[in-house]
Amino acid sequence: MRLLEEKILSDGEAISKEVLKVDAFLNHQIDSKLMFEIGKEFAKLFANEEITKIVTIESSGIAPAVMTGLQLNVPVIFARKQKSLTLNEALLTTSVHSFTKNVTNNISISKKYLNDNDKILIIDDFLANGQAALGLVDLIHQANATVVGIGILIEKSFQSGAQKLKDLGLRVESLARIESLENGVVNFISEKVEELI
Amino acid sequence: MRLLEEKILSDGEAISKEVLKVDAFLNHQIDSKLMFEIGKEFAKLFANEEITKIVTIESSGIAPAVMTGLQLNVPVIFARKQKSLTLNEALLTTSVHSFTKNVTNNISISKKYLNDNDKILIIDDFLANGQAALGLVDLIHQANATVVGIGILIEKSFQSGAQKLKDLGLRVESLARIESLENGVVNFISEKVEELI
Repeated sequence: MRLLEEKILSDGEAISKEVLKVDAFLNHQIDSKLMFEIGKEFAKLFANEEITKIVTIESSGIAPAVMTGLQLNVPVIFARKQKSLTLNEALLTTSVHSFTKNVTNNISISKKYLNDNDKILIIDDFLANGQAALGLVDLIHQANATVVGIGILIEKSFQSGAQKLKDLGLRVESLARIESLENGVVNFISEKVEELI
Repeated sequence: MRLLEEKILSDGEAISKEVLKVDAFLNHQIDSKLMFEIGKEFAKLFANEEITKIVTIESSGIAPAVMTGLQLNVPVIFARKQKSLTLNEALLTTSVHSFTKNVTNNISISKKYLNDNDKILIIDDFLANGQAALGLVDLIHQANATVVGIGILIEKSFQSGAQKLKDLGLRVESLARIESLENGVVNFISEKVEELI
């Protein structure tokens, strides 16, 4: 998605070979108009999938997920990293390791918001090693619901997450695919020719 | 706001005299269309305030804040409860106690996203004892920016937060104001007569 790639180039920061910092428009400050356009793009990509719900994970997945939910007209559920006193009913739970933050969290979704008829679109900000997305897939499968696709804003294609998800037969749509972050320079995987026409 | 009050009555749950559970449309599952309408309402209420940025706190404030940001065409910043490895620059920090979760968190905003020219609208999901809102006010004042108003979805008016904020001279706009949650029944403070005409 050209708009997102341009934003990454103008406002993102490759702070190491593995870490792209996008606090300026996604992970701390949020560009709502960009999120709206991203929601439109995901809604278009998954228009024919009869999606019933979107699942994401707090916190940075929420903005693009609600913009997608607005345009697909379906509810959004965000998996919780901490238990809340008001979230004490039956939970689906799994553990997810974040390499960026170097912590392992239990993530949870209340059982009552997912059922076996649901066709779920997962939305998340980054796809790197795939831990968060695989955790969400696990929660959805625990509910016997179907994952119809995974919409990612920024895929670090030099890490293994996208391949792991594709190996499970899952459709992955990443709006920006990063080939490398060497020497502070962001290199994208070239878009397919048909997308450039 | 009639739409929000109706949603609270249909999908909310008064689980004690002090706790209203709205996981069905705000704190776990999110009704994006409702959040869009809430964003429109805040944008209308604060249309003349020349707001430059919206500040909220993860996670439940993000959805209504980005919908408001979309319609006021300003960036949204969400205060972080945990430090991230990619959020390691100069931070504004304060501590906030959550009575619902019974934890005290440090919350932080990166210094570079707030400056002394900013006119800030704070958006949050609940206003109870006012701890979260007061923490955000503190962060904004640390940056020498101006708080022009506070937009709250659900005010528990039987707790002291709204009064504390008003005592600081701050404008508080709460879309649903709850008088009591006795016996599992949600009672709203009656809307002013002119709003009913």
